[in-house]
Amino acid sequence: MSKSSVTSPAPSISMRPLDLIRKKRDGGELSSDEIEFLVRAYTRDAIPDYQMAAWLMAVVIRGMTRPELTALTSAMLHSGEVLDLSDIAGAKIDKHSTGGVGDKTSLIIAPVVAAAGVIVPMISGRGLGHTGGTLDKLQSIPGFDINLSLSEFRRVLQTCGCGMIGQTAEIAPADKKLYALRDVTATVESPNLICASIMSKKLAEGIDGLVLDVKTGSGAFMKTEEDSVHLAELMVETGERMGKKMVALITDMDQPLGLKVGNALEVEECIEVMKGGGPADLIEVSVELSAWMFYLAERTPSVEEGRKLAHEMISSGAALKKFREIIMQQSGDAGVIHDPSWLPHARHRADLLSPSSGFVASIQCEQVGVASLVLGGGREKKEDVIDPAVGLALHRKVGEPVREGEPLCTIHYNSDTRLAEAQGLLQQAYRIADRPPAVKRPLIHRVVSGKTTQQ
Amino acid sequence: MSKSSVTSPAPSISMRPLDLIRKKRDGGELSSDEIEFLVRAYTRDAIPDYQMAAWLMAVVIRGMTRPELTALTSAMLHSGEVLDLSDIAGAKIDKHSTGGVGDKTSLIIAPVVAAAGVIVPMISGRGLGHTGGTLDKLQSIPGFDINLSLSEFRRVLQTCGCGMIGQTAEIAPADKKLYALRDVTATVESPNLICASIMSKKLAEGIDGLVLDVKTGSGAFMKTEEDSVHLAELMVETGERMGKKMVALITDMDQPLGLKVGNALEVEECIEVMKGGGPADLIEVSVELSAWMFYLAERTPSVEEGRKLAHEMISSGAALKKFREIIMQQSGDAGVIHDPSWLPHARHRADLLSPSSGFVASIQCEQVGVASLVLGGGREKKEDVIDPAVGLALHRKVGEPVREGEPLCTIHYNSDTRLAEAQGLLQQAYRIADRPPAVKRPLIHRVVSGKTTQQ
Repeated sequence: MSKSSVTSPAPSISMRPLDLIRKKRDGGELSSDEIEFLVRAYTRDAIPDYQMAAWLMAVVIRGMTRPELTALTSAMLHSGEVLDLSDIAGAKIDKHSTGGVGDKTSLIIAPVVAAAGVIVPMISGRGLGHTGGTLDKLQSIPGFDINLSLSEFRRVLQTCGCGMIGQTAEIAPADKKLYALRDVTATVESPNLICASIMSKKLAEGIDGLVLDVKTGSGAFMKTEEDSVHLAELMVETGERMGKKMVALITDMDQPLGLKVGNALEVEECIEVMKGGGPADLIEVSVELSAWMFYLAERTPSVEEGRKLAHEMISSGAALKKFREIIMQQSGDAGVIHDPSWLPHARHRADLLSPSSGFVASIQCEQVGVASLVLGGGREKKEDVIDPAVGLALHRKVGEPVREGEPLCTIHYNSDTRLAEAQGLLQQAYRIADRPPAVKRPLIHRVVSGKTTQQ
Repeated sequence: MSKSSVTSPAPSISMRPLDLIRKKRDGGELSSDEIEFLVRAYTRDAIPDYQMAAWLMAVVIRGMTRPELTALTSAMLHSGEVLDLSDIAGAKIDKHSTGGVGDKTSLIIAPVVAAAGVIVPMISGRGLGHTGGTLDKLQSIPGFDINLSLSEFRRVLQTCGCGMIGQTAEIAPADKKLYALRDVTATVESPNLICASIMSKKLAEGIDGLVLDVKTGSGAFMKTEEDSVHLAELMVETGERMGKKMVALITDMDQPLGLKVGNALEVEECIEVMKGGGPADLIEVSVELSAWMFYLAERTPSVEEGRKLAHEMISSGAALKKFREIIMQQSGDAGVIHDPSWLPHARHRADLLSPSSGFVASIQCEQVGVASLVLGGGREKKEDVIDPAVGLALHRKVGEPVREGEPLCTIHYNSDTRLAEAQGLLQQAYRIADRPPAVKRPLIHRVVSGKTTQQ
């Protein structure tokens, strides 16, 4: 592993933060030297928070050009270590999701893709707010260690082609510091800053290509397809400018993905899929993302061939075998694969019953995510401790018929007061109508491909 | 003197700085409660600099509505003491200038207006950058004490109808804290924030009306007439919303006002005017501003009558007598009035000679101000110590003929290295052409009157 090469010359002594803030305030374009100066100086505490806050606000309102965005991403990436995996044979491809409810595809995709020989160096974040995080799901597997050092991570990758860990302090420290400041200065909601934050961390993995899963709908951070496509385009272009193969799939998050929401419950559902069962929507999105990873890795000549290969990895049991391998490599109890009852289970269950007969017209997806959070399955603040056992099992999804008094979902809970709050949210979330919605939303809304990844 | 009455209810516990930053970021309008919450909380250190910096940047880019601006001005005003001068008989009127080069009218206007029985409670700022400050000019008079407490200031006002002091810590502390932050976050250049800063300090003087001298041209902070008028309109409307009589004159600052630039030199020129001499432009602007002060005070029924009264105060010697009184009340050496040689004088003089014959086509006014600053007459940083003796005496102004080798101005200096730098700047500042400029700029560009002050 090589330290990031911060070899560029020291910025000119005449560069002043004030001038750079003013330039962006007035809608000007900063040079990459200027952006690198800001990021480097801020990371080493040579620029105070109040100046960076003013600059960030100017960026949020004025926007950034693509060269500025690339420079920002690059400066943040090179603020820390960048893995060099060139001595591990094979293409290195990762997937990143912008986050959703019941969005558990990583736990299926990583084994599927690694089982076919592609290296998947997956460094993930934790869930925050109404969305779940891959790390929290993995940690519901008894013993599973997500806190590997980068050298341990490397060893796991060499041994089984896939590792799944949390972000280490060595990765993009500039992003860590900037994100903390954005969080308290109302400068989070900026496609440019979101893009730089995601890409600087993902590109530190030493990957050759990245498949982005940009969620859209009521359970996503980007509620409209337009916003989702814009963010996808920014990330695809930025990744390509930095020499990576990129593609983004805009996928639906207007209702939860699959039927389970909650950490252990979602692991169980992933195991179900890898055993050949599981809900169709989860399978379709997982296969589609895997197929694009195969295509980017040049493991298959087309995405269509990639789909076939993904299905094959599932039906042959190779994916499940790879998942067991990953769990064992990271000190987890692989027994959960054969007997999911080894996963944590909540003490109580309660059904949410349909108040009328008809069809599920919509499920306000963010509220479902908040209900799971309220039960203890997520965190509002970074410090919150997660209860891996709680969550929801949906029995009806959008478009499906239901009779009055039939269960819409089952709530898995450990606290009565939390149950009551979750019930209230879920009652509001489900809308029952006389007929199913006229238009069925697609699962895959759109593919935003890069210059090098067009089919 | 009464403490500012901060009697409004404590802001709702649910008000969060982050929401208010976000609202302004997205172009929304804040309520006056929300703005008061921000200013009060920031002033007592309950909101960190980085949050205020983000909000200020959003204000600079998104602007403010007039009600927002009034709320901001009011919150800043009431962050400190507001003088109550109601027990001193007579109208209280002040003048404020946005700052210029050779802009010394305060020293003429205050005595002229007070001599006619109007109370002039003048609390001034120091010069910063290329513009001079009234306080620095006054301090070139040996012994003159500008650091009176508010109760001493009150006594001087009662005794002679006019006092001229510097800002005390009790006046608008929110402005002091906000200005320091704006200075380091590139959020100074905002008409709204400039307006709130000026007006919150001026309205603390307990005045009934205010005449604004908004400078325009190459030596002003606002270089274009459009920007000057915009700022003037903001200030006039804000003052009126807060119950004050307001008018703004847009006056020329495309070349220095009068012939002298530098602290003691400018005091000398003011005494000259009050003795019946002095340059015509300085007299005209001083008389015009005084006339509007008389009109606002209802001391004269019209501005025209005000002009006459101002001239009368000068020609009768009443203004000079009042100036002597002010100096004595504030512990200064009034002997300078009879013998200006008691003022500090520089050790050396050097003429700047015209490089060719022709007419003065323009004088880049900001550069003349910087030349005076470089000689030691101004300050780049607040901590800089001023040399009251140095400065410039202009011999030619725009439109005047000059022959090659004739002096354009005389530099009064105490340091050879500083002389060289000033000479370089002044050589660049003067432009000599074959003919005078086709269009003569007016001294008074425009009057921006309020609803209650239209003639």
